[in-house]
Amino acid sequence: MTAELTAHELIAKHRPTLDQALEAIRTRAYWSPHPEHPKAYGEHSSLDAAAGKAAFDALLGHRIDLGQPGTDDWTGGEVSPYGIELGVTYPHADVDTLLPAMRSGQRAWRDAGAQARAVVCLEILKRISDRTHEFAHAVMHTSGQAFMMAFQAGGPHAQDRGLEAVAYAYAEQVRTPGTAEWSKPQGKRDPLALTKTFTPVPRGIALVIGCNTFPTWNGYPGLFASLATGNAVLVKPHPRAVLPLALTVQVARQVLAEAGFDPNLVALTTEHPGEGIARTLATRPEIKIIDYTGSTAFGDWLEANARQAQVYTEKAGVNTVLVESTDQYKGMLSNLAFSLSLYSGQMCTTPQNLLIPRDGIRTDEGPKTYDEVVADIARAVDGLLGDDARANALLGAIVNPDVKARLEAAAGLGEVALASREIANPEFPDAVVRTPVIVKLDGAKPDDEAAYMSECFGPVSFAVAVDSAADAVELLRRTVREKGAMTVGAYTVDADVERAVEEVCLEEAAQLSLNLVGGVYVNQTAAFSDFHGSGGNPAANAALCDGAFVANRFRVIEVRREG
Amino acid sequence: MTAELTAHELIAKHRPTLDQALEAIRTRAYWSPHPEHPKAYGEHSSLDAAAGKAAFDALLGHRIDLGQPGTDDWTGGEVSPYGIELGVTYPHADVDTLLPAMRSGQRAWRDAGAQARAVVCLEILKRISDRTHEFAHAVMHTSGQAFMMAFQAGGPHAQDRGLEAVAYAYAEQVRTPGTAEWSKPQGKRDPLALTKTFTPVPRGIALVIGCNTFPTWNGYPGLFASLATGNAVLVKPHPRAVLPLALTVQVARQVLAEAGFDPNLVALTTEHPGEGIARTLATRPEIKIIDYTGSTAFGDWLEANARQAQVYTEKAGVNTVLVESTDQYKGMLSNLAFSLSLYSGQMCTTPQNLLIPRDGIRTDEGPKTYDEVVADIARAVDGLLGDDARANALLGAIVNPDVKARLEAAAGLGEVALASREIANPEFPDAVVRTPVIVKLDGAKPDDEAAYMSECFGPVSFAVAVDSAADAVELLRRTVREKGAMTVGAYTVDADVERAVEEVCLEEAAQLSLNLVGGVYVNQTAAFSDFHGSGGNPAANAALCDGAFVANRFRVIEVRREG
Repeated sequence: MTAELTAHELIAKHRPTLDQALEAIRTRAYWSPHPEHPKAYGEHSSLDAAAGKAAFDALLGHRIDLGQPGTDDWTGGEVSPYGIELGVTYPHADVDTLLPAMRSGQRAWRDAGAQARAVVCLEILKRISDRTHEFAHAVMHTSGQAFMMAFQAGGPHAQDRGLEAVAYAYAEQVRTPGTAEWSKPQGKRDPLALTKTFTPVPRGIALVIGCNTFPTWNGYPGLFASLATGNAVLVKPHPRAVLPLALTVQVARQVLAEAGFDPNLVALTTEHPGEGIARTLATRPEIKIIDYTGSTAFGDWLEANARQAQVYTEKAGVNTVLVESTDQYKGMLSNLAFSLSLYSGQMCTTPQNLLIPRDGIRTDEGPKTYDEVVADIARAVDGLLGDDARANALLGAIVNPDVKARLEAAAGLGEVALASREIANPEFPDAVVRTPVIVKLDGAKPDDEAAYMSECFGPVSFAVAVDSAADAVELLRRTVREKGAMTVGAYTVDADVERAVEEVCLEEAAQLSLNLVGGVYVNQTAAFSDFHGSGGNPAANAALCDGAFVANRFRVIEVRREG
Repeated sequence: MTAELTAHELIAKHRPTLDQALEAIRTRAYWSPHPEHPKAYGEHSSLDAAAGKAAFDALLGHRIDLGQPGTDDWTGGEVSPYGIELGVTYPHADVDTLLPAMRSGQRAWRDAGAQARAVVCLEILKRISDRTHEFAHAVMHTSGQAFMMAFQAGGPHAQDRGLEAVAYAYAEQVRTPGTAEWSKPQGKRDPLALTKTFTPVPRGIALVIGCNTFPTWNGYPGLFASLATGNAVLVKPHPRAVLPLALTVQVARQVLAEAGFDPNLVALTTEHPGEGIARTLATRPEIKIIDYTGSTAFGDWLEANARQAQVYTEKAGVNTVLVESTDQYKGMLSNLAFSLSLYSGQMCTTPQNLLIPRDGIRTDEGPKTYDEVVADIARAVDGLLGDDARANALLGAIVNPDVKARLEAAAGLGEVALASREIANPEFPDAVVRTPVIVKLDGAKPDDEAAYMSECFGPVSFAVAVDSAADAVELLRRTVREKGAMTVGAYTVDADVERAVEEVCLEEAAQLSLNLVGGVYVNQTAAFSDFHGSGGNPAANAALCDGAFVANRFRVIEVRREG
């Protein structure tokens, strides 16, 4: 096969970006090669908003035929949370045919080496980046994210996380040199001398099990970490969010083929309703790596049962914000209101429990009682979402009926400080759009504890009254230890309380945001700088992205010869 | 507590060594700060041979009281494979007291940071190095290694592996900076700005489960990797090989205390006969990391049951040497003879199966039939071990009755090409010293396959007749895939065969030594340059030492603040 894209060309094109990424993960300063602004994508070109929308529309009702071996059937049936039936169908794999086919290109992919794999991955990401407008619609109409969030989180931010994984994977593989001359002195005799070669080898086929809410953002790190370390990657999207990952696989296959590699190094499979194919795939002997985002129950099942694989899971957690005192009360209220509202709280990083002393807090506007603080947060959310257009742009749509059911049930758990409202979406009348509910609970009441100590995924927050700052710190510790947390936030001007919260986060391994009052929110992390999760508490067994996320996806094989 | 050793002093003393170790793991050239020659240890000083022997003798019959909390009892009863009763007793822990005590010093150890932890570890290793003569006797009289091997493998080589683990641990922790300023442009508005701190935090208490044959060499990587990444370390030696690790723990506790840290960060526990304490300890919630060397059965049990911990195992495997052709027949024979004889084959890296084409091989001395090759290998072993003094110095003693029983049973498995002989040890008349047995087997016979496809740990090798080089390569593949291998060797002058063997090793993740005919042996690996195991086949789930061995022993916690 003659490669249309030579390694030389790809290195010339992408090595500077790779080097910048390597520098960014070392300094952890701000950096991204992927523009966040929709207008940055070649206005009046094939990359712009109109072209992206047209490309998305052209997909609807059609089959995405990836040309994969072992396609025994086609599945489909995605319905957008905005009410559109996508009507797209995808390959359903006969895995006994597909998995062997995925292995046949692995040797050439391994022999290409870490740099060639990295630049092929960067070319895949670049082509995805060029189609960000199209992907934004695909993410929007599978996750229910509002367009701008789907654009940013599903586009540049997801691409950043993919690139970050490639950078870590590359750095890890080149820590050991390709060859070494070893010469051990032997006194007066000749030295012992060996020539050694070191080759990073893949573990096998990696499985990416996608999620409903962030198909690309949560899917790209595992996908690119595994591919860049030489593995083939089988992508099994969530049945409600296939399209963004199907397009991703399509791009990857195209680039691989153009670069002279076997396109079957990346493949897709979907499932029929109720088929539960992830369970079957996860325990196949060919599958050596699994990346999963989703429920704790299935994540725990994978960790216990997919023993032949390295398993990286992001599961449920209970995120806490401790509200003890502030010198920027208004900033705190608006920052919290945004965090609770964004994507209707359907982020694994959204705060759930707001721990507030029942005796109230100190603020720059004087002391505030517990009731006042809760009412002010409710009012801030109301204000933020008062305008329907803005509400729609922030909230997006409820992703599935389970979330809606939990939201509706939440009002029965305690005194409702802020009731959820329906918002009409004029563009998509069938979209289920809801504002968040805030329920008051008492940290000391066992019945309330049952509510606030469980993850209630969706636009539900609990204003939990606690006895004191010390009580809040202990509840934070217990929550992280027992339930896990992707994020912790705290507002305090008291150095002792700050130190106590920090100590809990260090001891229980939770990522902490302190006194955020501006345009950065506890539920957002930036690739190359912020870790997403810690891998050290029950919410996730891995962090995005660190050395541990990539180091065990390959092994280094040494061949030594005399002389 | 006033530290007798300040961090400043320790950094001044050990940072250059750490830097050299960091460079060595990057270049993988030869390096070691620990001399191999017994005379290098300050002759006529407190470090020399006589002083080391006297120090060892002074231990016999005494109690090693480590001053640990929760010592509820004392155990002992080690009998040297050379026949001496050591009569040393050690603390047996009440773990409900000891484990909480081990946690109380963790915060200060964490806050000290990666560099301070590294130099404290280097000071521990330096003190152990200074007592290498004493440790050599302790290793000899627990493992049965001959003195010179106990000195080198149990002394400088073990210390090298410990230092290598410290270097990897340090490098991994400082990949992320301690602080970062993050500033994200916002067009005409002020940039978003955050100050971020990143802290490596330990997972908890690490458990090292020691082995009988290489208590220090196999124990140090996990011990030092865990300690250097901020964890407390509980050492549970093999009941027959407590002394070398008890001394290690003693030194570690002393250095920690002198450096102002809690000595309980490193502790020892032993067990009563039949207590099986490893099983109990391994599933304690406080234990977050386990390093284990030993049987496949217990290693698999740990991986399946110690779900709260990161588990690093080195288990059994079946090591193969493929003998296809050579242009240095004499060198090959003497190299193989040494590999089979060293420490009576009681190394996890000793070759077991010698695959030899039944039609014979090409050599620089003309063609040799299968029978001739086997007879020549047998003769080479005989020649190497013909002198009893040299035999004793190479073989050491049989470590335990199980190995002796396997050796005796092996003669019944097929035609004996080389019978095992008893060697008298004039210095230690009770030592069980045996030369290796070589048994001929037919690769095509199912009965024989049952023998050569199982690990027969000890001085037992099988000369397996195979149909062809291709047959040998396929048997090698099947052996590594199904049984695992710590080492693979091959002798071939055929480029195609060499490439085929190499490809199997890359695909099945086994470390390969090619055409060794001089003073380097397939069963020996050098720290800083060679990987021990691959972590990619059933013999071990980790390699000594790479990024994956250290990266998940700690997590990085980020605290971010505005401005």
